[in-house]
Amino acid sequence: MTDRFLRACRREPTDRTPVWFMRQAGRSQPEYRALRERYSLLEICRTPELCAEVTLRPAAQLGVDAVILFADITLPLLGLGVEFDLIEGQGPVIARPLRTAADVRRLRPLDPARDVPFVLEAIHLVRRDARVPLIGFAGAPFTLASYLVEGRGARDLLLTKRMLFEAPEVWDTLMAHLVDATVAYLRAQVDAGAQALQLFDSWVGALAPDDYARAVLPHMRRLFDGLRALRVPVIHFGTGTAGLLRLMAQAGGDVIGVDWRIRLADAWALVGDRGIQGNLDPAALLAPFEVAARAAHTILTDAAGRPGHIFNLGHGVLPHTPQDHLRRLVALVHEHVPLPAGGAR
Amino acid sequence: MTDRFLRACRREPTDRTPVWFMRQAGRSQPEYRALRERYSLLEICRTPELCAEVTLRPAAQLGVDAVILFADITLPLLGLGVEFDLIEGQGPVIARPLRTAADVRRLRPLDPARDVPFVLEAIHLVRRDARVPLIGFAGAPFTLASYLVEGRGARDLLLTKRMLFEAPEVWDTLMAHLVDATVAYLRAQVDAGAQALQLFDSWVGALAPDDYARAVLPHMRRLFDGLRALRVPVIHFGTGTAGLLRLMAQAGGDVIGVDWRIRLADAWALVGDRGIQGNLDPAALLAPFEVAARAAHTILTDAAGRPGHIFNLGHGVLPHTPQDHLRRLVALVHEHVPLPAGGAR
Repeated sequence: MTDRFLRACRREPTDRTPVWFMRQAGRSQPEYRALRERYSLLEICRTPELCAEVTLRPAAQLGVDAVILFADITLPLLGLGVEFDLIEGQGPVIARPLRTAADVRRLRPLDPARDVPFVLEAIHLVRRDARVPLIGFAGAPFTLASYLVEGRGARDLLLTKRMLFEAPEVWDTLMAHLVDATVAYLRAQVDAGAQALQLFDSWVGALAPDDYARAVLPHMRRLFDGLRALRVPVIHFGTGTAGLLRLMAQAGGDVIGVDWRIRLADAWALVGDRGIQGNLDPAALLAPFEVAARAAHTILTDAAGRPGHIFNLGHGVLPHTPQDHLRRLVALVHEHVPLPAGGAR
Repeated sequence: MTDRFLRACRREPTDRTPVWFMRQAGRSQPEYRALRERYSLLEICRTPELCAEVTLRPAAQLGVDAVILFADITLPLLGLGVEFDLIEGQGPVIARPLRTAADVRRLRPLDPARDVPFVLEAIHLVRRDARVPLIGFAGAPFTLASYLVEGRGARDLLLTKRMLFEAPEVWDTLMAHLVDATVAYLRAQVDAGAQALQLFDSWVGALAPDDYARAVLPHMRRLFDGLRALRVPVIHFGTGTAGLLRLMAQAGGDVIGVDWRIRLADAWALVGDRGIQGNLDPAALLAPFEVAARAAHTILTDAAGRPGHIFNLGHGVLPHTPQDHLRRLVALVHEHVPLPAGGAR
């Protein structure tokens, strides 16, 4: 088993830059699309054999240095007592969005063995066969809260902001509950065999830095405190976060994941003493391969001379991405020999 | 007439920080909503008396230090030979989106006197009655191009990126055409009486910095070169640009407009030797006023001791914003006495 990925998480020198892709398992793969003709996304997630098969395929087909549990960030919500549907092309739609203190009080604690046993079983199956590390993951509390409050993906998050501005005590209660649930969920994933974790705070880039500092950062600190005892590296990822990176690093994470809207070198300067993951624009992979290759070279150059870079896209693989482009990108990253630590800078 | 706004554009000291709001005329005003029961947005834009009335109202009602021409960034498109509809709640929908070199070659040059005479007449009427400076504006070429290529507002801009990645010569031809049209449009606005200009590059934050540098920056430089002879200050605004600010400042603009996703002090450090406009989250004005007041104080503190700050929101006023909050915010900004230049820093 290659430990390139885990070494980079710990900012130890690696022979090559490790690479994996968010949504490397999914719509871009013909095998996955064929599977989806027979099963819904939730059916795949709840069937450990199918989930493990989907999780593992990118390692064999693309040569990536890590696999990530195939799951949806909404999976733990049912355990909290939140009913939702996953609507194709739209994402989760919550039956009764949370708006009041009473709504928040009704949330149940998560009991992973009762609520998501299929996730834990899938992790066992993946670990039995995987030759690269397995990343477990969860949605970060802010992003989960935004789904729970808005009821669906919403661009401006006006209802979420309304709660955190107008009813900070309700907001803090909701976030505290989600922190507890997330710690329990991720602890169970690590106990089942996950070797690293990623927190997806996909929508946090909608916040002003001061609002992040007030309404999110203290909760994230408590979350990272709760994860420390698990002794696995944690990647802290968000999009649209170029103005939040210093605060996100203060909140926690061994590695900060960044999208493509900032130069990797600028992002790394902002997060300081952490690893960094990213940050190719997924849209570049829809163009002739030379476009992605050019951008990847810039990213690798930005990261030169400092251990702790994990190559990834800035967000998930887009559905129409050619598998061959992903394969060639893995090869390109692996052809590149990182400068030794203490080299260029 | 107060010249606070124009002095700040030139980075000269002012008695108070000037303040105006993007979309200060529009859906948040009961008088505007009443007008829209009788006229469409385009009818208002094309009727100079109505347009002037709508443009001027915020100066009287809110006490802002500048008014901005009431218009839509799509107004010049008809002159280019592009047919579109403005769909309520969705924005412009282009009848035949531009996808090929032939599509781009069919664009006509803009002749403002022929294509947008109503805009120029409205500017005359506004200037006759205005007691604060009038800002003219246009959509920046990238944002216009993204509408023309996507056909409608699209979050990921995948078709736009596809053109700039796969067919850079087609893209450059399109951008060059839009630069010429925008220079002609803004020159006509200044000739008619506009005293400052703002370029709205609302969607440019979707680009990676290197792609901005390659596909947008050279065109923006030519645009700013073309505007220099007009001898009015130009504000260069975009959203989601925390990772692009250095490049946007390199492209041009006397003042850089920023959204709320970065601290004003951090943004100003990135743009360097320019004025700065922003940057309150418009959502803060939907909460109890104290929320906006607290954020406004932070912004004013960030800007202290350096002339060239124009207070604004980070994007347009949201439809449900109470007019009273806007009035109180103007008063709050005007109560604050900026430190003299050479003071705090």
